[in-house]
Amino acid sequence: MTTPADPYLLTPGPLTTAASTKAAMQRDWGSWDADFRAMTARLRAALLEIAGGTDLGYDCVPLQGSGSYCVEAMLGSFVPRDGHVLVLANGAYGKRIATTLRYLERRHTVHDTGDYLPPRAADVERLLAAHADITHVVVVHCETSSGILNPIGEIAEVVARHGRRLLIDSMSAFGAVPLDVRALPCEAFVSSANKCIEGVPGFGFVIAKKSALEAAKGNSHSLALDLHDQWDVMNRTGQWRFTPPTHAVAAFLEALRLYAEQGGQPGRLARYTRNRDVMVAGMQALGFEPLLTDAWRSPIIVTFFSPAHANFSFARFYELMKEQGFIIYPGKLTRVESFRIGCIGALDESVMRRVVQACGTALRTMGVPDGAPEHASLDAREALAA
Amino acid sequence: MTTPADPYLLTPGPLTTAASTKAAMQRDWGSWDADFRAMTARLRAALLEIAGGTDLGYDCVPLQGSGSYCVEAMLGSFVPRDGHVLVLANGAYGKRIATTLRYLERRHTVHDTGDYLPPRAADVERLLAAHADITHVVVVHCETSSGILNPIGEIAEVVARHGRRLLIDSMSAFGAVPLDVRALPCEAFVSSANKCIEGVPGFGFVIAKKSALEAAKGNSHSLALDLHDQWDVMNRTGQWRFTPPTHAVAAFLEALRLYAEQGGQPGRLARYTRNRDVMVAGMQALGFEPLLTDAWRSPIIVTFFSPAHANFSFARFYELMKEQGFIIYPGKLTRVESFRIGCIGALDESVMRRVVQACGTALRTMGVPDGAPEHASLDAREALAA
Repeated sequence: MTTPADPYLLTPGPLTTAASTKAAMQRDWGSWDADFRAMTARLRAALLEIAGGTDLGYDCVPLQGSGSYCVEAMLGSFVPRDGHVLVLANGAYGKRIATTLRYLERRHTVHDTGDYLPPRAADVERLLAAHADITHVVVVHCETSSGILNPIGEIAEVVARHGRRLLIDSMSAFGAVPLDVRALPCEAFVSSANKCIEGVPGFGFVIAKKSALEAAKGNSHSLALDLHDQWDVMNRTGQWRFTPPTHAVAAFLEALRLYAEQGGQPGRLARYTRNRDVMVAGMQALGFEPLLTDAWRSPIIVTFFSPAHANFSFARFYELMKEQGFIIYPGKLTRVESFRIGCIGALDESVMRRVVQACGTALRTMGVPDGAPEHASLDAREALAA
Repeated sequence: MTTPADPYLLTPGPLTTAASTKAAMQRDWGSWDADFRAMTARLRAALLEIAGGTDLGYDCVPLQGSGSYCVEAMLGSFVPRDGHVLVLANGAYGKRIATTLRYLERRHTVHDTGDYLPPRAADVERLLAAHADITHVVVVHCETSSGILNPIGEIAEVVARHGRRLLIDSMSAFGAVPLDVRALPCEAFVSSANKCIEGVPGFGFVIAKKSALEAAKGNSHSLALDLHDQWDVMNRTGQWRFTPPTHAVAAFLEALRLYAEQGGQPGRLARYTRNRDVMVAGMQALGFEPLLTDAWRSPIIVTFFSPAHANFSFARFYELMKEQGFIIYPGKLTRVESFRIGCIGALDESVMRRVVQACGTALRTMGVPDGAPEHASLDAREALAA
């Protein structure tokens, strides 16, 4: 089989985008021009509406760079210099938040539940009660290291009850998993163009309380990542402070059009959930075991244990999948061999069936018996829990 | 005349790109995949070669975000916390450098020569002699606020003689104006994808001494903008630390191919110079007066004084130009009315002739007599110099 020109990306973003989304990048826009300013305004309004934030005192601030830039901007802008942040970490992205806070010299306490356990309300309750000086709590919505969907609802409830402020990294979840500020009040959350809205990478965005954006004046450690300044200039001039990724913005507007056409957040969640269920069932039939139980498994990305069989090699498996037109993703677990398959992007269950078929072909090519490959999974999970 | 679908951008970037550059964005790339890692390696090698830095101990570090992010990353990474920076400012971008250093809490001294005068070696000499504790000098290569081309050669010579380190913001100049580290040694310089290489916006890059990149460890105020970390991870894994703007990278590689095909830096300089000369001559024939004398006028962007005639309005002029298919740029002078016309991007002298024609039409439509419109220019320039 030859390599297809454009393989499907089964990754947590950048992801496979619609042809019309890419086609929207076939024009150069002047960033100062009124047409582009109108595009920026539409983008902000559409995102705010998806977040349920219209007329509720929230605003949307897009920011150039990757999603992690937005996380850093959120932390640097909203956490005052004398703040104290409780970081709920269960994977690489939670750890990156702690690293960022070290750079920013903001005091922080990390509650790390390891590779595959979620932070729970009871733990947060205990920590907030013990540390009265904690001002902010940060949680990752979907931690794509494992694919776990963290219970932000119960966490938001505790944080609000204790009068602290909640910041959410909803990078890979927003747009598909419900995050409506009417139901789940938070100080701010971030996501990025190239996740569940299915745009191309180049910028991210922060949805934040206007009161938080106002209070952020003077907090930021960085001019580029100063959300107050970006918001203030954008509101006054309609422009991004620095050169925006004009083509990525144009692509995003087309992605937003498709998003609405396809039923918005409920439509997207339904498709991704179906993608996941079809894919997981097929992989289980091949003998692959997912890391997480159903309760915590996100519709965004799923981690599977690598087969323990001596013939299995992830590098080889990756290449065999790529030859069949599918780019999968390596694992990010710290102590066991794993790989990940994403469920997001412009693809549906028919593609997922072909993914499963390709996995079966890859196993046979490597000489790993399907149906019952021996996995290191259960032992490993027990070792992790110990 | 109706509005063309895709007007020419006569702006200092984002600019008009070639059709094939935009067409290169019609594919989604997996950022972890070996194909994309190879693209990143090619991009770094090509830029290093344009800078003359191969085998001279320099390296290229691309960074997500706009060009100003790269300036901030350069300052935050290379200036140690106890450094002292001399900022040579003569426009908005020099001022932005000073603002950035305020955010970074790095000590700095600003030498501001105003809207249209260049910093000169003698002044830098005097300042360095007077302030033995100045560790770094920062200069803007082409200050697009006015379009002035600053004399970085003579400044580099003085800085080197005094044993200080030179950092250059060559955003809008690199690729067209010579900047070869063999002839002009510097600690580092930055530029961006959407300038003279004619890519689309989404990332910038820093060319820096490897010794500077090594010494930068632990300096940065920001994780996202830490050039040491970006460089180190990229060298070890071939990957960008965070999601790269994959489509903008693919477009840039096509832009680099066109760049080489069109004669590299000398070819680009020749075309832009011709663009400028044709455009300035035509504008002068219409009675427009450029801000700068020939000696300091860059081939990147030219500032013209707005006619003093009562019928002239920049907003109206802008719309009339746009209707004819040309996006021009407002002025950025602090004390006189002006506008700017860029010479860079995928356009040639035939386009510039049509630009001049369109300007003439716009003047006539507004009822501003061409040939000899009264300008506030000379008086204003004298007032500025006073």
